[in-house]
Amino acid sequence: MPVVNEERKTETPENSKSTLPPLVSAANLVREVSFEDISTNIRPLGQLEESFIIATDDEGLLLIDQHVAHERILFDKYRALENARPADSQNLLMPETFDLTPAQTAAFDSVAEELEAYGFALMRLSGRTVAIKAVPADLPAGEARNMLAEVLETVDAEKRGSTRATFRDEVAASLACRAAIKINTPLALEKMRWLIDRLLLTSSPTTCPHGRPVILRLATRDIEKGFHRS
Amino acid sequence: MPVVNEERKTETPENSKSTLPPLVSAANLVREVSFEDISTNIRPLGQLEESFIIATDDEGLLLIDQHVAHERILFDKYRALENARPADSQNLLMPETFDLTPAQTAAFDSVAEELEAYGFALMRLSGRTVAIKAVPADLPAGEARNMLAEVLETVDAEKRGSTRATFRDEVAASLACRAAIKINTPLALEKMRWLIDRLLLTSSPTTCPHGRPVILRLATRDIEKGFHRS
Repeated sequence: MPVVNEERKTETPENSKSTLPPLVSAANLVREVSFEDISTNIRPLGQLEESFIIATDDEGLLLIDQHVAHERILFDKYRALENARPADSQNLLMPETFDLTPAQTAAFDSVAEELEAYGFALMRLSGRTVAIKAVPADLPAGEARNMLAEVLETVDAEKRGSTRATFRDEVAASLACRAAIKINTPLALEKMRWLIDRLLLTSSPTTCPHGRPVILRLATRDIEKGFHRS
Repeated sequence: MPVVNEERKTETPENSKSTLPPLVSAANLVREVSFEDISTNIRPLGQLEESFIIATDDEGLLLIDQHVAHERILFDKYRALENARPADSQNLLMPETFDLTPAQTAAFDSVAEELEAYGFALMRLSGRTVAIKAVPADLPAGEARNMLAEVLETVDAEKRGSTRATFRDEVAASLACRAAIKINTPLALEKMRWLIDRLLLTSSPTTCPHGRPVILRLATRDIEKGFHRS
């Protein structure tokens, strides 16, 4: 039987708050692990801060960034659309108008067709005004103008050298980012399961289109070490 | 808009298993944190490996070792009993017998009264046989003989110099360890809440009687760093 540490007598939490020993962090006790694969047996338990899905699989604990997970799902979907157009579209009840700058006017002409393939319905009005009559089915209507501005900026960048294929990826990534579930959004367990199931079917479940991690892992064997169990 | 990484085309998970990028570990991205205090707003979500309670509080994610958490609760309870004896006891339907070695016989005489104060009912039969007629209320009946053997070993150690107070702590720690919920035991959410609520009332919720950590933390700000969100 190990020697028992010296302990204070039981106190109420109010009395003992200032003198409690520090809570041990998992940070200094876990080790870096690398993975060949991702289990398909992922079970969501809930959310942290309504932003990160907490789940378990056979190797330990997983944290999934709900926004970038959905971004990856949508990006793969939009990329696939390149071969199966036109995309699903939703008509806006009231068309939105967007005033182009002179620089954007030239950019607009070069991308209008591309955007319509993704589900936008755009119409040039008089002068430099554009009416947005429909948007891709996944995109919240309120994001339509931001999305259009972002794509027009991308086209400027394209003129400075990026390829047409890169431009298409960037439109898909921008659209995925605008349409994906935000952080600080409560999700039902059923929705978490849907996200995880769809994520596992994507081309790269561990990274988002911009290269950020989608999943973080804390392995059971590292947790056991943290608890001095191995 | 950031440059989009090169991505492979969508594949089925079966095809892509061997070439997926490694899963990012939380280990190398989180930092050590120290805590002045423990939140009383801990919400259990479920278990990992039916051994570790996964919970959240206002600072992030918590992992609680269910066995050592219960050990801490029971240790404090047994220590408190020193001032409020006798302890709750449960009669065994069939008394268990225990054969003492010659060395244990001397030890037994010196601890029988102590053990009875903790809820044991012990009776010397003929020769070196002891009947265990009752055990402390929390102790599974199947642990009675192991517990007795362990305490008798402790008494041997005591003769080599430990104090009476240390011996009492060791009996309390041994009893707490034997009686506590084991790992690999499924717990209902209600039981997890009970454990956490009781743990927060103890003298030292972050360490078990043997000094092992009871709670590990992964702070939200470190998780955000892991996801490149800060």
